[in-house]
Amino acid sequence: MAPNIVGSLFSVFFEYDTPRIVHIRSKKVGVINRFLQLCIIGYVIGFAIVFKKGYQDFDDVQSAVTTKVKGVALTNSSDPGLQLRIWDVSDYIVPPQENNAFFVTTNLIITENQTQGTCDEDPTIPGVNCTGRPEICNEPSPIIGHGIFTGHCIPSNYSAGTDVCEVYAWCPVENGMRKSPSPPVLEASKNFTVFVKNNIEFPKFGVKRRNILGFENDTELQNCRYNPADPQNRFCPIFILDDIIRRAHENYTDMATSGGVVQILIHWNCNLDYDVEDCVPEYQFRRLDSSQYKSAKGFNFRYAHFYMKEDKEYRTLYKAYGIKFIITVQGQAGKFSVVPLLLNIGSGLALLSVATIICDIVVLYVLKAKNIYREKKYLDVKGDDAYEVKSAISHY
Amino acid sequence: MAPNIVGSLFSVFFEYDTPRIVHIRSKKVGVINRFLQLCIIGYVIGFAIVFKKGYQDFDDVQSAVTTKVKGVALTNSSDPGLQLRIWDVSDYIVPPQENNAFFVTTNLIITENQTQGTCDEDPTIPGVNCTGRPEICNEPSPIIGHGIFTGHCIPSNYSAGTDVCEVYAWCPVENGMRKSPSPPVLEASKNFTVFVKNNIEFPKFGVKRRNILGFENDTELQNCRYNPADPQNRFCPIFILDDIIRRAHENYTDMATSGGVVQILIHWNCNLDYDVEDCVPEYQFRRLDSSQYKSAKGFNFRYAHFYMKEDKEYRTLYKAYGIKFIITVQGQAGKFSVVPLLLNIGSGLALLSVATIICDIVVLYVLKAKNIYREKKYLDVKGDDAYEVKSAISHY
Amino acid sequence: MAPNIVGSLFSVFFEYDTPRIVHIRSKKVGVINRFLQLCIIGYVIGFAIVFKKGYQDFDDVQSAVTTKVKGVALTNSSDPGLQLRIWDVSDYIVPPQENNAFFVTTNLIITENQTQGTCDEDPTIPGVNCTGRPEICNEPSPIIGHGIFTGHCIPSNYSAGTDVCEVYAWCPVENGMRKSPSPPVLEASKNFTVFVKNNIEFPKFGVKRRNILGFENDTELQNCRYNPADPQNRFCPIFILDDIIRRAHENYTDMATSGGVVQILIHWNCNLDYDVEDCVPEYQFRRLDSSQYKSAKGFNFRYAHFYMKEDKEYRTLYKAYGIKFIITVQGQAGKFSVVPLLLNIGSGLALLSVATIICDIVVLYVLKAKNIYREKKYLDVKGDDAYEVKSAISHY
Repeated sequence: MAPNIVGSLFSVFFEYDTPRIVHIRSKKVGVINRFLQLCIIGYVIGFAIVFKKGYQDFDDVQSAVTTKVKGVALTNSSDPGLQLRIWDVSDYIVPPQENNAFFVTTNLIITENQTQGTCDEDPTIPGVNCTGRPEICNEPSPIIGHGIFTGHCIPSNYSAGTDVCEVYAWCPVENGMRKSPSPPVLEASKNFTVFVKNNIEFPKFGVKRRNILGFENDTELQNCRYNPADPQNRFCPIFILDDIIRRAHENYTDMATSGGVVQILIHWNCNLDYDVEDCVPEYQFRRLDSSQYKSAKGFNFRYAHFYMKEDKEYRTLYKAYGIKFIITVQGQAGKFSVVPLLLNIGSGLALLSVATIICDIVVLYVLKAKNIYREKKYLDVKGDDAYEVKSAISHY
Repeated sequence: MAPNIVGSLFSVFFEYDTPRIVHIRSKKVGVINRFLQLCIIGYVIGFAIVFKKGYQDFDDVQSAVTTKVKGVALTNSSDPGLQLRIWDVSDYIVPPQENNAFFVTTNLIITENQTQGTCDEDPTIPGVNCTGRPEICNEPSPIIGHGIFTGHCIPSNYSAGTDVCEVYAWCPVENGMRKSPSPPVLEASKNFTVFVKNNIEFPKFGVKRRNILGFENDTELQNCRYNPADPQNRFCPIFILDDIIRRAHENYTDMATSGGVVQILIHWNCNLDYDVEDCVPEYQFRRLDSSQYKSAKGFNFRYAHFYMKEDKEYRTLYKAYGIKFIITVQGQAGKFSVVPLLLNIGSGLALLSVATIICDIVVLYVLKAKNIYREKKYLDVKGDDAYEVKSAISHY
Repeated sequence: MAPNIVGSLFSVFFEYDTPRIVHIRSKKVGVINRFLQLCIIGYVIGFAIVFKKGYQDFDDVQSAVTTKVKGVALTNSSDPGLQLRIWDVSDYIVPPQENNAFFVTTNLIITENQTQGTCDEDPTIPGVNCTGRPEICNEPSPIIGHGIFTGHCIPSNYSAGTDVCEVYAWCPVENGMRKSPSPPVLEASKNFTVFVKNNIEFPKFGVKRRNILGFENDTELQNCRYNPADPQNRFCPIFILDDIIRRAHENYTDMATSGGVVQILIHWNCNLDYDVEDCVPEYQFRRLDSSQYKSAKGFNFRYAHFYMKEDKEYRTLYKAYGIKFIITVQGQAGKFSVVPLLLNIGSGLALLSVATIICDIVVLYVLKAKNIYREKKYLDVKGDDAYEVKSAISHY
């Protein structure tokens, strides 16, 4: 029997099974069938392979962004710290460098000459107004206050006729009655420019690109300004801040007054089957917070410059309102590869069975001649257990 | 013949092929078959379509986070720089603003009045103890030291009776024998609050949301504190630092002593088929480093405040231990779309063939009546090459 | 009829449909068929299940990175601010801490003693040279200048014999004729070390790891240096900056002169079906910008130290060139799970139908005996509408 087994194992390689088919010549079902097959083939070829580039292997972008803001602004208001003062990059970019982001100060409240000591708390803080009830100054100081209660109740320097609790703090404390100046003190920042340098890489394909394209020399580059409508300047990496905000559908002065967060999206969607020179960036601008909110609007934070005077530490406190620009780089590169193509063709063919299933339902349950078709399609075999036993017996 | 070809091309559109089927009435196989089909249909409908929302198109969240910490702390220890001093936001948040993160100083070692010059190196640095062997000071200075060896061996100011190499450095150098104070000098920071403002957008669906929900005005908002158990305050964006650490299953004082890294996860998983008001954030807190490690534990860094005294540059050096909070926003929104639904139905139907394959194995190889079924299912055709030739001849 | 309906509904559960098959014994088709099936099974088992780990459930890495740079450098050049000065961590790391990044200053241009006032603009700025044409100083000042034109034309201090417009600015303005010093003033930074502490977590599997592996104590850890060729030191988290740059195929001195951006990639690809101790990091280094560009090369930014002298604000302006290191943590962990395994087996079986489709094409259109096969495979049924009507009549 051994050669027999080897023989049948061997013969397995020379066999092929194919389903037996009922070939129905019917206009109705034929049209439905071909239409469904067309849809599926159209989907597979048109959508999965051509539109979604199912014949390509993909790689995500690796990116590095550095930014450089240029511009100077002059303030000349009566507010403390703002009399005839020039603001340059080292003044209004805080912190001086960030990863994929930069912050431009657009509005300022400055409190000068603070030093450690005791003074009257800001009367706008809830729970510090002790007019006629000095005992509240013995309670714990409020978390949003500027210092620690000493227990005394003293007249406020900011609000005449009001008594407030005395605090141990950086004195004098910031005056909470001062609102963010309007128009913003650094409104001139709308004309500032930012040079966004973006180097990208698609490691799988060894392709490196950057967003500075088609500029011959530094002078030409420095003089360009981004403009999506211009064939050359749509690749200019220098943006006017006001332009960015306008393209994000916001008003610069409004946004500069109370601050905000804006996203600069750089899309790199590259088809490396074409010339690598066609792999170019596209820019999109979007405000990430909203100007529509009533409470907790805008963006601001506090920082200080510290200095020493007669061995005592002093500081100038800045409450900086401004626009935070976040740069997000997204993108994919695709290149022809045989594996994803075969996968898509394979799964497309498998989907073709869906057409057969739907047509079968029509043929066997809907059409009037369904019984005829059913008869041709099906071969009935009674196979209950009794029958099985019987047949098993008859077989041996 | 031409009309004939056109005719057959035409007739192709009115044809339909359906497999011929053996219809077996057997309890055993029938039950197996229906059970497998039920599993597959259950998986497709229950898991892929309903549970995994296979009827929806998805979009990833675009997010902007800004944070604002509030609170003041008083230090009053004998350590340099910590005698009766108030610490407010501009003091303990370093740098003043970061993207998706903030750092709260919780513990400090301060070295005051440093200026460029020569002095004794910190005796805890390996390779600087020159007691009895002054020649080692002529070797290159160690990389982890504070300055450059001048070549002299002088008595240490920090460790009596020890001689150390003299260095050119910011003098006096930080005293390495001082450990991070315990309890941490800014332990009061546990009561500080942080306001996490998170604006998100699902650009594909044009939906903008933020994490401030259901608060009528600024006062109500400022007084709330996050509490996941409270129906209103689980949407409060103000967190007490101690609460965050506790929810991350850590102890604030321990963590404040040597520093650490904590992640605040904000999940936005939104089903936009329902009311957009149901699209709400969920918070999760997690310590990203571990308190279990023996070496290289915690988080600290050094920064300095620079100042001028009589035209000479001085600085105060801060070794800041603290908690770094990293805010990660994750999420997806789904909305009904017909394309993914069809795709899932299609691939589900394709999977149904698996049931047939498994049952065929049972029918043809396991059941006793397998030969009967095999006879009905298969039509044997001898198709070796000899036969092929013969048939080809007979055909012409 | 009711029992009849119940009966047929019931009998549906004890039925099984299997296609009728033409079993062809042909070497040609058999070999093609088995070869295709082998390819598909090979792909499913070899590629989808084994290579792509189709039997595993995956989780993405959650990561926290903290860095600590060590090292001091001495500058002693005639340039302002660089005479006999020591530079330590608090001097050359700006800002003192960043999220997943750090910046090391490698080259510097310092402008000392700036204060608000009027002075001559930098003559290298285009549009400020007013030699013989003082009227240009009445035009708006250029955006890339250092200040606001006062309208006067005065001799330049930087370029003898040239007249430039006077500006209100931080005076004296930075001298644009000074290029980045070569060799870089902080070239000694090549020997600095950076300790990269990376804690990761795979939340789905509850696995926490860090990149400090196999070091017994702090001393052993502090003395190690990363070396991928050494079995122990390939897990050392302390890197020499020069090593990083060399492994990114760049030259340290070149890069230090004009600055650059370098990525440190940490890969955590873990198979948690094995011992969790085998879950170890791998490092990769890559320059993200390019040294090949002619324009807009390198990385630099400006920051200032502010101080007070006789109640007037002064600052020292630093133009810092340096290397920005970006740390990216990538990785996945996989663990055996039955759901993805079944999914892969299922879709693999569905793909097997592709073999049948291709072989059918061969059998029915290519082989000489195609008509014989076609006859056996197909059962023709005329099913046009006339026929349908007729059959429908005959049926009733």
